[in-house]
Amino acid sequence: MNIEDYREDFLGYLNEKVQLKEPVNLYKPVKYILEIGGKRLRPILALMICDLFGGDSKKALDAALAVEVFHNFTLVHDDIMDSAPIRRGKETVHKKWDENTGILSGDAMLIMAYQCIENYEPELFKKLILLLSKTALEVCEGQQWDIDFETRNDVSIDDYIEMITNKTSVLIGAAMQMGAMIANASERETEAIYNFGLNLGLAFQLQDDYLDTFGNAETFGKQIGGDIIENKKTFLYLKAMNICNINDRENLLELYNSSIGDTLKVNAVTQLFLRNSIDKLTKKKILEYTNKAFEDLETLTISIDKKAVLKEFGLSLMKRSI
Amino acid sequence: MNIEDYREDFLGYLNEKVQLKEPVNLYKPVKYILEIGGKRLRPILALMICDLFGGDSKKALDAALAVEVFHNFTLVHDDIMDSAPIRRGKETVHKKWDENTGILSGDAMLIMAYQCIENYEPELFKKLILLLSKTALEVCEGQQWDIDFETRNDVSIDDYIEMITNKTSVLIGAAMQMGAMIANASERETEAIYNFGLNLGLAFQLQDDYLDTFGNAETFGKQIGGDIIENKKTFLYLKAMNICNINDRENLLELYNSSIGDTLKVNAVTQLFLRNSIDKLTKKKILEYTNKAFEDLETLTISIDKKAVLKEFGLSLMKRSI
Repeated sequence: MNIEDYREDFLGYLNEKVQLKEPVNLYKPVKYILEIGGKRLRPILALMICDLFGGDSKKALDAALAVEVFHNFTLVHDDIMDSAPIRRGKETVHKKWDENTGILSGDAMLIMAYQCIENYEPELFKKLILLLSKTALEVCEGQQWDIDFETRNDVSIDDYIEMITNKTSVLIGAAMQMGAMIANASERETEAIYNFGLNLGLAFQLQDDYLDTFGNAETFGKQIGGDIIENKKTFLYLKAMNICNINDRENLLELYNSSIGDTLKVNAVTQLFLRNSIDKLTKKKILEYTNKAFEDLETLTISIDKKAVLKEFGLSLMKRSI
Repeated sequence: MNIEDYREDFLGYLNEKVQLKEPVNLYKPVKYILEIGGKRLRPILALMICDLFGGDSKKALDAALAVEVFHNFTLVHDDIMDSAPIRRGKETVHKKWDENTGILSGDAMLIMAYQCIENYEPELFKKLILLLSKTALEVCEGQQWDIDFETRNDVSIDDYIEMITNKTSVLIGAAMQMGAMIANASERETEAIYNFGLNLGLAFQLQDDYLDTFGNAETFGKQIGGDIIENKKTFLYLKAMNICNINDRENLLELYNSSIGDTLKVNAVTQLFLRNSIDKLTKKKILEYTNKAFEDLETLTISIDKKAVLKEFGLSLMKRSI
């Protein structure tokens, strides 16, 4: 099966399982956010890994759905916290309805994520739930660090990597580990695939940081420079603050605090990044985590063909422009 | 053991388990809300029922904590939705910190509730988690109905009972059922004790409605007439709208829409309730659910002595003034 087959399987299952019911004011937003799209990266990974470890990917559909429902819960609550009006080109839940609806429907989704797992037999059920809980709490911690960093001026690159590990990577790792658990892989193997996901997730998030400034507006689908406009302390910003000379450091601080207008600001910061090779240094870091992920792959006992599939998938994520 | 022993055991366990950790901005509010008190009714019930069914109440401490952490999660999020400034005589989490903190720390508590259960063996673990998830989603649905009812004029008494069943009773039933499950009671027994809790929970919530209008300010601990001031469609209001003559019905509607000042309004509505015997009719309904709970008790195979303990506990809840 290829990526599109997994996606199709997953979307079919999602449509079957996510039905509107009473009270509609609680479940309509749940159906809305789950149906407006997204890459479906996490559930696809759960299915693919189950398959590659010799399991039946159909058996991983419930876990894949749990991960996707959980991921969308975090989007609904994060969008409230960030006062974000738009998600995937559509109104966010708290904009389309109101904040209380966003809070309560989000809560329901977190519980529903746990319920998605209920059909597995007790031993596997317990493993999956423990992984879901651990991951879910780490994601909350990551979101808290992200909020804390906004008002802190002493954030190191290591702090940042730890934050995005929690906020993004652990769920990608967990999606893959669940797939391997359902395929009945050994504990050593499920841990190795988790680490593969974790490192790939870091590469993925750093690629997001990169594309936000250096991407192509047409293919990226988001406004280029959004992070700069919002004064986000991304890898690019932190790296620049780390390696620039004192002049450019002061320039960058000034630009982040200035009100010269979005276009001028984005252009100036981008030029500053380019003359300090921040683009190349970010690409280097992305490659570093991708290679780490490939090292994790080498420790697995699955066939070379299967490793090649995962390697290709990792490379495609790294080269993506969307 | 008596109620105070269970409470002490529980509070000791709570203090041991709920420790502050990083990120402190996430976990400080969790510790705060869990430590500012409350009756601890639900965890005490979990311990007591485990004991009465021949189990070791120490083994129910984790489940008791799960139920209390979950309950406090609902308080934190409900207080945001209700814009409530005070809870248990202290500032609510979103007032003491801010709304985003309330949302995120609440999310963490919901996940922590699931984590409390992790030490049970897989079969029991699965039973407990399924019950927690079912209950949790019902509580969300109850909260949604409660919000919906604020702007609906066609709420029946049956609708209201269904709403408070979800919002309050199911968690009391679940706390007791968890205690019985941990004591390894039969499925029939755990279901009967759940129903006992459900009916007792309804009596408990109706008693709350009663005390809010007819209680003694000194012992109740909350402002008398709060529900009237906030135009809440409680059992008292709905019953009055059901049985009053057209004059008093119009009076009540007018009073709920008037701005004559809190004291005058509370007095006038209370008088209207009294001349229509709403106090007695509410007491009658409370007795009805208490008796239903006692019927559930009769189907249990535990000793007469043990049934007497539960009966006395039920009666004490019904007669409470706080």
